[in-house]
Amino acid sequence: MKQVIYETFGNPADVLKVVETPDAPLGEGQVRVQVLRAPINPSDLIQVSGNYGGKPPLPAIAGNEGLGRIVEGPGEGQLVLLPAGQGTWVSETVCDPRHLVPLPEGDLDQLSMLLVNPATAALLLSDYVDLKEGDWVIQSAANSAVGGYLVQLAKAKGINVACVVRRESAVAGLKELGADVVLVDSPDLAREVKAATGAKMKLAVDAVAGKTAGRLADTLEPGGTLVNYGGMSNEDSAIGAAALIFNNITVRGFWLVTWMNAADKATRAALYADLAGQIAKGTLFAPIDRHFTLDEIAEAAKYSWAGERNGKVMIAPNGV
Amino acid sequence: MKQVIYETFGNPADVLKVVETPDAPLGEGQVRVQVLRAPINPSDLIQVSGNYGGKPPLPAIAGNEGLGRIVEGPGEGQLVLLPAGQGTWVSETVCDPRHLVPLPEGDLDQLSMLLVNPATAALLLSDYVDLKEGDWVIQSAANSAVGGYLVQLAKAKGINVACVVRRESAVAGLKELGADVVLVDSPDLAREVKAATGAKMKLAVDAVAGKTAGRLADTLEPGGTLVNYGGMSNEDSAIGAAALIFNNITVRGFWLVTWMNAADKATRAALYADLAGQIAKGTLFAPIDRHFTLDEIAEAAKYSWAGERNGKVMIAPNGV
Repeated sequence: MKQVIYETFGNPADVLKVVETPDAPLGEGQVRVQVLRAPINPSDLIQVSGNYGGKPPLPAIAGNEGLGRIVEGPGEGQLVLLPAGQGTWVSETVCDPRHLVPLPEGDLDQLSMLLVNPATAALLLSDYVDLKEGDWVIQSAANSAVGGYLVQLAKAKGINVACVVRRESAVAGLKELGADVVLVDSPDLAREVKAATGAKMKLAVDAVAGKTAGRLADTLEPGGTLVNYGGMSNEDSAIGAAALIFNNITVRGFWLVTWMNAADKATRAALYADLAGQIAKGTLFAPIDRHFTLDEIAEAAKYSWAGERNGKVMIAPNGV
Repeated sequence: MKQVIYETFGNPADVLKVVETPDAPLGEGQVRVQVLRAPINPSDLIQVSGNYGGKPPLPAIAGNEGLGRIVEGPGEGQLVLLPAGQGTWVSETVCDPRHLVPLPEGDLDQLSMLLVNPATAALLLSDYVDLKEGDWVIQSAANSAVGGYLVQLAKAKGINVACVVRRESAVAGLKELGADVVLVDSPDLAREVKAATGAKMKLAVDAVAGKTAGRLADTLEPGGTLVNYGGMSNEDSAIGAAALIFNNITVRGFWLVTWMNAADKATRAALYADLAGQIAKGTLFAPIDRHFTLDEIAEAAKYSWAGERNGKVMIAPNGV
């Protein structure tokens, strides 16, 4: 079987390598899962670079989410979600079936992304501010996978969404998805948001940090909340004193790992059952840019990081 | 009588001027108060510069806190605290006695500062994090009036205080006041704080913003809180993505005006009665650098803003 591993932290295009290993034997009660899809998330690449919240012991197998089919052992034929944290950029894996989440048959690409991004979008909307129909939310990096899910989830609840992107070419897709207002980031953002929406934002969701975080903060209503879940600009979030002191805003951070560790099993199960249902129905989805094989991992990492994609980059270890 | 007024927003040393006006006649039930002390707070000067949260209609009388004695009308002879927001850099004022807070006789300088800084320090300690004996708090601009009050209030409750200052000469005074650790701000602050205290901070209190805010944020325990109440660096608060996302900190702002508007009368009265008692006993105090007359206001503003003071600058409109 094939695995994508890294023995040192560094630029993913340089340090990721594909190794062939003999098929692992099945232990008592274990199952063999053929991996069918594994998304490349920005956080996967940040983890390989060594700049993530937790560093795995090296050598490590790359990838944090994926979907496969049980090909040997109890439950043969069942489509399953792989557990986080064991390395998913592999052609097959052997594991304890209690760690697998059974999935309904459906679109393999869409179902493979259940674990990270839809949950992130749902929790950003639910866990910080009590949003009611007609309230406004603004988000940066809006054409990311999380951004798209957030638009779909918010619109389903009658919440208005203002989207901020870095390039004009990303505007049309978000409008089509239901975003009420889409603006290209600029120093004049707060004024433009006010002009386009006539409203102050109740919640701002940011994955860019740097000056963009401060601009989003300046769109908030008094007492509003800014939640940062990514630092794509590689800069500190620059928050104005007036927003904090005079406008009484709160700045928070979101990390799915923190939530996973704090939430009880029933809460986690309820969230994922809800999201899996919406994905199976097709009301919750993210565009796919293209597929790569495991052998193309260096190119896939480079392509995924460049940011000019039109959707998620997917690894299909056993063919599309 | 004399008043310090400004007709345009700008550099206080330039726009503040002293005018002589005829004594105002007393209306029905009003009293005349001879002003004895009025502190110069940084926020007073920021307000004159036009960069404050609320801008008064112009021309405006400068100053936001002060103490005086009733010299005409009911309660003659009573020492009183002037109400906020009516201009206190005056030789005398006429007002409704219901807006005056009666004070016990005592140190005029210390009592004149009751309204803003002791309350700010007390609320920063009480309203954001549930602090218990032995917990650690860190603060920047620690040799300010608020900083000194915060050390005194924290130590009285057994809370440990790490202080951050911008110059070595400010260290000794804070140690004498009871600060457990005093460090000069540097890019290596978080490591130095850990080395000096062996602890992570539960609350960080910041009046500098800029990079200092981010350095304080990096000293916090997981889930800790940073509260910003001033922007002395004139820069945005630069908060790292790792602190927000992986360490799950919260960033807030504090403005006394917001608290005043939200708190009910009984809550306000209880806070000020408690603080007035501590000031009268002498357990809560701030050093005084020097006194100026109203006629010296331009020099007083310049001197106060320069920052190399050793205590609060005070206006004594009717002599020390």
